[in-house]
Amino acid sequence: MKEYNGYLIDLDGTMYRGNKVIEEAPSFIKKLRQERKSLLFLTNNSSKTPEQVAKKLTMLGIEAKPEEVFTSSMATAKYVKKKLPHGTCFVIGEEGLFDALHREGVQITDNVECDAVIMGIDHQITYEKLAKASLAVQKGAALISTNSDNAFPSEQGLVPGNGAFTAVITVSTGVEAQFIGKPETIIVEEALRVLGTSKSETILVGDNYNTDIRAGINAGIDTLMVFTGVTPFEQYEELPIKPTYYVKNLNEWLS
Amino acid sequence: MKEYNGYLIDLDGTMYRGNKVIEEAPSFIKKLRQERKSLLFLTNNSSKTPEQVAKKLTMLGIEAKPEEVFTSSMATAKYVKKKLPHGTCFVIGEEGLFDALHREGVQITDNVECDAVIMGIDHQITYEKLAKASLAVQKGAALISTNSDNAFPSEQGLVPGNGAFTAVITVSTGVEAQFIGKPETIIVEEALRVLGTSKSETILVGDNYNTDIRAGINAGIDTLMVFTGVTPFEQYEELPIKPTYYVKNLNEWLS
Repeated sequence: MKEYNGYLIDLDGTMYRGNKVIEEAPSFIKKLRQERKSLLFLTNNSSKTPEQVAKKLTMLGIEAKPEEVFTSSMATAKYVKKKLPHGTCFVIGEEGLFDALHREGVQITDNVECDAVIMGIDHQITYEKLAKASLAVQKGAALISTNSDNAFPSEQGLVPGNGAFTAVITVSTGVEAQFIGKPETIIVEEALRVLGTSKSETILVGDNYNTDIRAGINAGIDTLMVFTGVTPFEQYEELPIKPTYYVKNLNEWLS
Repeated sequence: MKEYNGYLIDLDGTMYRGNKVIEEAPSFIKKLRQERKSLLFLTNNSSKTPEQVAKKLTMLGIEAKPEEVFTSSMATAKYVKKKLPHGTCFVIGEEGLFDALHREGVQITDNVECDAVIMGIDHQITYEKLAKASLAVQKGAALISTNSDNAFPSEQGLVPGNGAFTAVITVSTGVEAQFIGKPETIIVEEALRVLGTSKSETILVGDNYNTDIRAGINAGIDTLMVFTGVTPFEQYEELPIKPTYYVKNLNEWLS
């Protein structure tokens, strides 16, 4: 088995499920640290700041610093700053997105005459926000969305994700969004820049075939699939392109 | 030209645009009344009660009684009462939808354990409402939606319609909705029952090819297209199946 120096590690379904740690996750991270691997937690969740994510991990027994967290909001902010350095943006989202945009110095506006509409999950969504986003896109604003997840698990079942709300704007305007999070390569490229390792020495670890593993495949980096989250082991045989490796749980890796 | 006894008449783009009457509409309706035609105003707008719609028409100079108005909410209520006579429904919508369901005696619940989710446009939409709808559908509730319009015109441009919000539930659950409003045949069949005329003696008048004219084509009734609303005359040549008749404005008809 190849030696990897850099690890991009998914959170939900890989490190924890909701508010419960996945049993093998803390010792997996401990081992990576003992072996002096570079690691970055990589999440499509756009709602939290890196500080909030690191705090949650630490509370679950997985020591983590904010600078080891990279969210779809952070990738989005870096992308927007690069593509529209002086652009103004109408933003729908939560603290994690607004915080990331502020840190990159992106100019936020409430005006529908703007350069881009940026969408992340917003539990305080209103008709007015969506109408404004729709009008801005019709006037020519680019539509940029943190992630395309149509649904995500809650304690009661799947609830609508940011992809579903982005669909409101797409079907009402006919304009497709540029998504940033996994499985897009944009978030992986930005994460590698932060991690500081090359593609060939980096591996992406995750449970969700359609986001995590596809992100690795799309970006051309190796992948390690676990079956502690969304994609069940029973689906392995049908996967069109296989992950580089798979383990039933993380104890089997690095042992 | 054939004589028609029954007229199904669209509102927005045919009788008025927003809050402005279309010039030829009042005299068109007056002539139909003089000739003792049966008429029913047929709208995909689910938010208003028939009393509110009749009042608006009257204020615009088009005399109308509530019993001459048939909305997608009324068609939805009749459909639900027929399909699920003792069912409980979780409802997203405005006064027009709740009013129609109450009149048909449909049992409304706030519980995600229910028989159907019914969706109409809701300007007070919240994440919680959409999450509940999504959970209910995952638990097996049917998804029924007043109309599939993805967008509708406002003074500033197109804003998201009920079809766009129904898409949130469809993409997050993988379940397609049963739509009721135009271009579906369900609303036309229910409207004909109210109007009391047969298909062969009825004509549907409207401006929107994809909703009005397709509804007539799908239901097998003749259509009269006007170019005072959504579909411009320039598109006439490209229309895959033509309306039975078209006029540039309603003065040309019955003259």
